[in-house]
Amino acid sequence: MNRLELIKQIIDKQSFLCVGLDSDSDKLPDHLPKSPASMLAFNKSIIDATQEYCVAYKINSAFYEALGANGWEVMEKTVDYIPHSHFVIVDAKRGDIGNTSAQYAKAFFDTMDADAVTVAPYMGEDSVRPFLGYQGKWVILLALTSNEGAHDFQYFQDPDGKTLYSKVLEKAMSWASYHEMMFVVGATKTEQLAEIRLMAPDYFLLIPGVGAQGGSLETVAELTMTDEIGILVNSSREIIFASKGVDFAEKAGEKAKELQMQMQEILEHRFL
Amino acid sequence: MNRLELIKQIIDKQSFLCVGLDSDSDKLPDHLPKSPASMLAFNKSIIDATQEYCVAYKINSAFYEALGANGWEVMEKTVDYIPHSHFVIVDAKRGDIGNTSAQYAKAFFDTMDADAVTVAPYMGEDSVRPFLGYQGKWVILLALTSNEGAHDFQYFQDPDGKTLYSKVLEKAMSWASYHEMMFVVGATKTEQLAEIRLMAPDYFLLIPGVGAQGGSLETVAELTMTDEIGILVNSSREIIFASKGVDFAEKAGEKAKELQMQMQEILEHRFL
Repeated sequence: MNRLELIKQIIDKQSFLCVGLDSDSDKLPDHLPKSPASMLAFNKSIIDATQEYCVAYKINSAFYEALGANGWEVMEKTVDYIPHSHFVIVDAKRGDIGNTSAQYAKAFFDTMDADAVTVAPYMGEDSVRPFLGYQGKWVILLALTSNEGAHDFQYFQDPDGKTLYSKVLEKAMSWASYHEMMFVVGATKTEQLAEIRLMAPDYFLLIPGVGAQGGSLETVAELTMTDEIGILVNSSREIIFASKGVDFAEKAGEKAKELQMQMQEILEHRFL
Repeated sequence: MNRLELIKQIIDKQSFLCVGLDSDSDKLPDHLPKSPASMLAFNKSIIDATQEYCVAYKINSAFYEALGANGWEVMEKTVDYIPHSHFVIVDAKRGDIGNTSAQYAKAFFDTMDADAVTVAPYMGEDSVRPFLGYQGKWVILLALTSNEGAHDFQYFQDPDGKTLYSKVLEKAMSWASYHEMMFVVGATKTEQLAEIRLMAPDYFLLIPGVGAQGGSLETVAELTMTDEIGILVNSSREIIFASKGVDFAEKAGEKAKELQMQMQEILEHRFL
């Protein structure tokens, strides 16, 4: 999916919501057996219930790999099940030397037909470049993450006070345009959100950490939304595990709708 | 496998060789069909032919993921096929927020019975910690990698001249002892190998980049070997793709033996 199509989806749905399918098999509703088949059925129900309110799904590969090859198959079938109208992100945080990253790109863009994959920047340009150049596909590069450990290295400063995350942004923008790269910036990092938006005015930001991790949607939008929207906000557990009962899909739909309505209000306020 | 068992294997075999199973399905010998089944048969033949000369195998997950769920199953079956006498590394370069890293740890240490997994440090302590505390299992953390892109961020310096890779080493050593953590340091970084050994005197280093990427085994060993060995040197393509003919396993065995004999010479020279 290209940038214009994504923006059109956001405007049509009045939503910049990404639903995170962190479908931990141990946390499935109580009436579902703990199995790969249940995980797939769960995902399908969640997708059915939420697709009206979101523009993207983010599949967290770890939760699928934890079940081995059968889990990987659930991931593949989940990607296949997501409507073509939606932007599909595999949150895999890959990155390796060039010939290896090329294999990861093949895994997620060819074998699996995802629109985007998250990539970790530590190994530099030749670890990122093999993911680029696929028509309508995206690299979503980690810049500043929402977790506590972000402080260990991402704020590391050079003698001019430049942080590692801003160095990552700066370099990465010289590798790829905003037509094929986005950045992950945690919603909990409010002080840095405005700074990052200033540095990367045209790039989409994928913003996790709203909800379970504590970030506020209004604040995030205020600091990062652009004239071309420019943000996808992810919510995972808050939506998909809104209920452990047989009404799990219904509750997930309600939660997604609630977020969509907040987003609509933000969009109307901004663009009216 | 614990540290002592690993060292004993190295002494018994007079080898600190790790064979990298970067089994690119497009590069299999010409007589093998391009299929997951061939990839598994190829791996088994390579393992049969090389196990006498190496102490570890490193499975590069990208090459398996590129084939989807079937590829993941080949990875699982390859891990199962490797003799218990050998140290099994899954080179997956994972790392995410805590609850997600916990799922990756489950994937590689529980669902798959690997001894070690490579982890990328960008997201900091809480992205690494869930991999720790598994009895006899290891985190192999990226410190300084062998690729050109290592220069983009890993050499980033703070006002005191401390590089990012040394900051990673310093912090990581406060998270885990040398009984459950190793570091990846590229063989091509000869200037830094001695410095890193000085910083982390007791930690095993996993050293890729000998062979196809151009590092010299003698230089690497001279700069990094300790009184308790302390290094695993990986070679992938040079061994597994030594021949594209029906003699591929025989040639892989010969190449592994050649490296083992060089290692034996180095060990004898050092410990006699």
